[in-house]
Amino acid sequence: MKIIAAAIISALFMITYTNAQPQEITVVSPEFHEDGNVTFSILAPYAQEMKLHGSWMPDWNERIELVKGENGVWSVTVENLKPDYYTYSYFSNSLRMIDPHNALVIRDGRNHFSGFLLSGEESRYYEVNESHSGTLQEIWYSSPFLDLERRMVVYTPHGYETSGKKYPVLYLLHGGGGDEKAWSELGLANRILDNLIAGGEAEPMIVVMTNGNPNQTSSWFNTPGYSSEADPGFLNTMGNEQFERSLVDDVIPFIERNFRVIPEREYRAVAGLSMGGWQTQRLAYHHPEVFNYYGVMSMGVIRTGAFGYEVDELIEHTRIKMDQLNELGFELYWIACGIDDFLYDSVEHMVELLEANDFNFIYRESSGGHTWDRWRLYLSEFAPMLFK
Amino acid sequence: MKIIAAAIISALFMITYTNAQPQEITVVSPEFHEDGNVTFSILAPYAQEMKLHGSWMPDWNERIELVKGENGVWSVTVENLKPDYYTYSYFSNSLRMIDPHNALVIRDGRNHFSGFLLSGEESRYYEVNESHSGTLQEIWYSSPFLDLERRMVVYTPHGYETSGKKYPVLYLLHGGGGDEKAWSELGLANRILDNLIAGGEAEPMIVVMTNGNPNQTSSWFNTPGYSSEADPGFLNTMGNEQFERSLVDDVIPFIERNFRVIPEREYRAVAGLSMGGWQTQRLAYHHPEVFNYYGVMSMGVIRTGAFGYEVDELIEHTRIKMDQLNELGFELYWIACGIDDFLYDSVEHMVELLEANDFNFIYRESSGGHTWDRWRLYLSEFAPMLFK
Repeated sequence: MKIIAAAIISALFMITYTNAQPQEITVVSPEFHEDGNVTFSILAPYAQEMKLHGSWMPDWNERIELVKGENGVWSVTVENLKPDYYTYSYFSNSLRMIDPHNALVIRDGRNHFSGFLLSGEESRYYEVNESHSGTLQEIWYSSPFLDLERRMVVYTPHGYETSGKKYPVLYLLHGGGGDEKAWSELGLANRILDNLIAGGEAEPMIVVMTNGNPNQTSSWFNTPGYSSEADPGFLNTMGNEQFERSLVDDVIPFIERNFRVIPEREYRAVAGLSMGGWQTQRLAYHHPEVFNYYGVMSMGVIRTGAFGYEVDELIEHTRIKMDQLNELGFELYWIACGIDDFLYDSVEHMVELLEANDFNFIYRESSGGHTWDRWRLYLSEFAPMLFK
Repeated sequence: MKIIAAAIISALFMITYTNAQPQEITVVSPEFHEDGNVTFSILAPYAQEMKLHGSWMPDWNERIELVKGENGVWSVTVENLKPDYYTYSYFSNSLRMIDPHNALVIRDGRNHFSGFLLSGEESRYYEVNESHSGTLQEIWYSSPFLDLERRMVVYTPHGYETSGKKYPVLYLLHGGGGDEKAWSELGLANRILDNLIAGGEAEPMIVVMTNGNPNQTSSWFNTPGYSSEADPGFLNTMGNEQFERSLVDDVIPFIERNFRVIPEREYRAVAGLSMGGWQTQRLAYHHPEVFNYYGVMSMGVIRTGAFGYEVDELIEHTRIKMDQLNELGFELYWIACGIDDFLYDSVEHMVELLEANDFNFIYRESSGGHTWDRWRLYLSEFAPMLFK
C-alpha cells in the first residue's frame, strides 16, 4: 500500500513529459566549476556529431565540438569566460537546438536559445535581487494614432505599490527584430535597475518598454494562431516615424494616467539600441520638448543616407533639429557604441556631425559589437546619470 | 550607395542569429489549412528521421513520422484536431527538440515545447482579447513564515488601474513540477478571465498565482546561475503544509495591502490542480474561515493514504474538518476530474467520503486525463460561478 502511495506521490512531482528520453543518467548542463570553467553537456547517444555556439563567440559561424562519452553524454568545457549573461545553442547535423537539460530558455525575436548567468563582479547587476525586486507588468493600452490595442512592459521599482511617491520615467526602446519583452528578457533591464537602485547608484524610476514595431500589437504577433486586426504587412518602421509619434501621443499620456509619475520633461528620459537608437535620435529632433535625457546605443547616421532619406537631406534636417534641441536645453545626450559594431561607422559619422555643430554630447566608446552584452552594460552606465 | 544603405537596413531588421541555418527556403510551421488540418514542418536536410509528439495524443510515447521532401523539409499533416491550445515536440534519433520555425515556445516546469492556438468555438476563451486584456504582474513579496523573498504573478482585470473599485480575489494554485508562471503560460488563466469578464460571464476579479513549492523563491529557482538563500533541498511540499500556511499568513495580507481588493471571506476563492488541488483541500479543512469558494481539480484522497498520512487518519481528520467547514457555511465546493486521470480513483474516493458525510459539493466529471486542456476547461467553468 505504501509503495502505491509513494508511486503516486512521485508521479505528482513528475512533469508529464519528463520521460521524453528514458534516462538513468542525470545530466546537469551547464555545470559551473570552482575555477570559473563551464561544462556543457547533452544526452544524445544516437547523434553523429554535436557542436556548440555561445554568445561569447564574436563570429556566429564559430562552433566548438562536444566529445561523446561512453554513457552517450556529449560534453565540452569552456574556459576563461568573463562573468555575464550568456546564450548558447547546440548543433547536430546542421540542426540548431536548445539544451534539453537547461530550464532557462531565452527568446530573441522568433528564435530561442538556452541561457545562463555566470556570476561575478562584471555581472553583479544582472543577478536576481530577491529583496529589492521591482514589479514587471505586461499591460495593454489603446494607441489611437496607430489604431491598435498594444502591449507594453512596465517596470516599477521596489516599493512603488505602497510608497505613495511619484517617479521619473525612462522610455527604453528595443532594436530591429525585437519587441516589448526584449529589454527585460535579453537586456535584464529590471534586474539592472533593481541592483542600481538598491545600491543607491540610480534614482528609483519607472521604465517603460514598448513595442517599437508600429504594425505589431505585441510579441504575440508572431505566434501561430494569434489573430489580430493589425496589418501583418512589413512596414519600414525606422523610416515612417509612426512609432515615435505613437510614443508621444499615446504611450506617454497612458503612462501618466495609469502610474504615479512626475509628468514633466525634466523627469523623462529616452534610450534605445540599434533601431531604438534611431528612434531616440528622431525623438530628440522632432519632439525636443518631451525628453530631457537621451541615450543612443549602437546607432548613428549612415553616411550614404537611409530609411528613405538622402544623406544631404538627413544631415541638413538633423542640423536644424539639433539647433532646436540646443536652444531648448537638455540634461544629457549620451552616445555609446562598440568598436566592432557593424554600425560603428554610422556612429563616427554622427559624432562628426554633432561636433561640427557644437552640439553638447558624451560619447562612450567600448569594446565589442552589436550585441546584448553591450546594451546591458550601457544601460547599467546610463541609468545612474538620470534624474539627479 | 543605395545598395549599401539597403543592406545595412536589412541587417538591422535581421535578428543576430537568423542565419542559424543558411536557408533559401522559408518554412512556415505550424501551417493552418482552411479545412482545419495543421501541417508541421522542419528544415533538416541531414536528419535520418523526424517524428512528432503532440499534446493531443493521450500516450506520451506516441509518435507520428514526418516525411522528407526533396528540399530537405520534413512535414506531416494532422487532421481532426479540435480547437485548443496545444504543445508539441520533434524527435530525431531520440533527441527531443522544439520547432525552430515556430516563435511560440511554452515552458512546463524545466521543459520547453513548441505551441500553437487552433482557433474555434472550443478555444474561444483562449484567444488574446486585445481590447479587454487585463494586466499581468510579476511581483515579489516577503514571506516571513517561510523566511524567503518570493515571486508571484497577479492578474488584474482590464480597467483595474483607473476604476477605483475594489475586487474579489481568486487564489489559483499550480500542480507538482509547476511554479508561479504555470497558470498564465500553460493555463492561459489571464486570457480566460479576459474573455469571461469581457463577455459578462464572470465577475471582474483579481487572480493571484503563487509559487506553491515552499522551498522556492520563484521559477528562477531552477535556472543556471541563479543564486538564492533558499534551501534547494527537496521538501515534500504536499505533506508539510508550509505552503498553505504561507498563503494565509503572508500572501493574502500582502495582496490586501498592495491591491484594491475586498478583504472579506465572501470575496475570496481558492482553486488548484493536482498538488494545488490537495493544497485547496487542506486550506478548506485547516483554514475554513478564509475562503468562501473552493475548486479542487484532478486530485482527491488517495485510498492508501499519502503525504505522510495513514489513510484512516486522513479520513477521520478530513471528516472532522469538513464538519467545521459545514458549520461555518460556504458558497461553493466544486470538484472536477477527467475519467482518464491517473488520480481519478482518488477523486472517486473523496466523493464517497464527502457523500457519506452529507457534505455539500458539486462534482463535475469530464472526459480526458491529467492535462492542461482539462485545467483550462475547468477554470473557464469555475470562474463564472464565483462572487455572484
